[in-house]
Amino acid sequence: MKQLRDKIRAEGKVLPGNIIKVDGFLNHRVDVVLMRDMAKEFAREFDTTGITAVLTVEASGIAIGAICADELGVPLVFVKKAKSDNIEGGLYRSDIYSYTYKKEVTLLLSRQWLGENDKVLIVDDFLANGEALRGLVEIVEQAGAELIGIGIAIEKGFQRGGKLLREKGYNLKSLAIIDKADESGIEFRGE
Amino acid sequence: MKQLRDKIRAEGKVLPGNIIKVDGFLNHRVDVVLMRDMAKEFAREFDTTGITAVLTVEASGIAIGAICADELGVPLVFVKKAKSDNIEGGLYRSDIYSYTYKKEVTLLLSRQWLGENDKVLIVDDFLANGEALRGLVEIVEQAGAELIGIGIAIEKGFQRGGKLLREKGYNLKSLAIIDKADESGIEFRGE
Repeated sequence: MKQLRDKIRAEGKVLPGNIIKVDGFLNHRVDVVLMRDMAKEFAREFDTTGITAVLTVEASGIAIGAICADELGVPLVFVKKAKSDNIEGGLYRSDIYSYTYKKEVTLLLSRQWLGENDKVLIVDDFLANGEALRGLVEIVEQAGAELIGIGIAIEKGFQRGGKLLREKGYNLKSLAIIDKADESGIEFRGE
Repeated sequence: MKQLRDKIRAEGKVLPGNIIKVDGFLNHRVDVVLMRDMAKEFAREFDTTGITAVLTVEASGIAIGAICADELGVPLVFVKKAKSDNIEGGLYRSDIYSYTYKKEVTLLLSRQWLGENDKVLIVDDFLANGEALRGLVEIVEQAGAELIGIGIAIEKGFQRGGKLLREKGYNLKSLAIIDKADESGIEFRGE
């Protein structure tokens, strides 16, 4: 998605350790106009016939998730990170390793909000090692729900998450895939 | 807002300890149609002339924040809870007590995303003891930004947060104020 690549090039910053900072428009300050355009792109890219929910994980996934859910006219369901809230009753859970927090994190979803009659699109702002997405996919499978696909804003193509998910056959679409990011600049896949 | 009160009455659950569970439409599964109607209500209730951003705090504030920002045509800025991410450079910070986590939590916002030329509306899904809002207001003051007001979906009127903020003169509007919640049911202020 050219508009997103242009925005990353203009405003993104590369920090040591391959950290790509886009917190001026994606995950601290959020450009909702860009989010809307990304949501429309997902609506074109995926067959969302019969979709019942958009699924994401707190925290920064919620912004793009809410706009996508609004665009597609279905509820947003967001998975919580353990101990973050009062969740009662039966739960789906998946243990992942968070590279942001540098520790194990448990993803939790109340069984009430996802089941075998659901057909969901997973969205998230970032894909790097793919641990959060592995957890989300596992929760969709536990629920017996149907997975339409996975829509990502920015994929760090030089980390393994995207490759692993594609090899497993998931319908993964990333709106911008960064193959290289260092002091000399940012290179996108397909350019 | 009658629509929200009706939804709380129909789907909300009261748990021991005055916990009001509305996670079927507000903060786990999110009814974005209701969120849009709440955003329109805030747009009517507040004078948003010259607004530059909607401000909230992660995680569950992001859903209502994103829809409000979309409705008002401005960016969303969400404050982070300490250690949650890679934040560089100058920061605004406020230390609050989180009754959910039962510990001190530091709210952080990069100085890049809020300054003295900003005019903001704070929104959040819940107001109980008001600690998160106290922190958000403190950050707006540190930034020298103008505060239009504070828009809340559900206020627990039997806890002190709303009273404290109103006494300090903030323009606080809660779309549903619950004055009593126990096994016998939920009572709303003004009904």
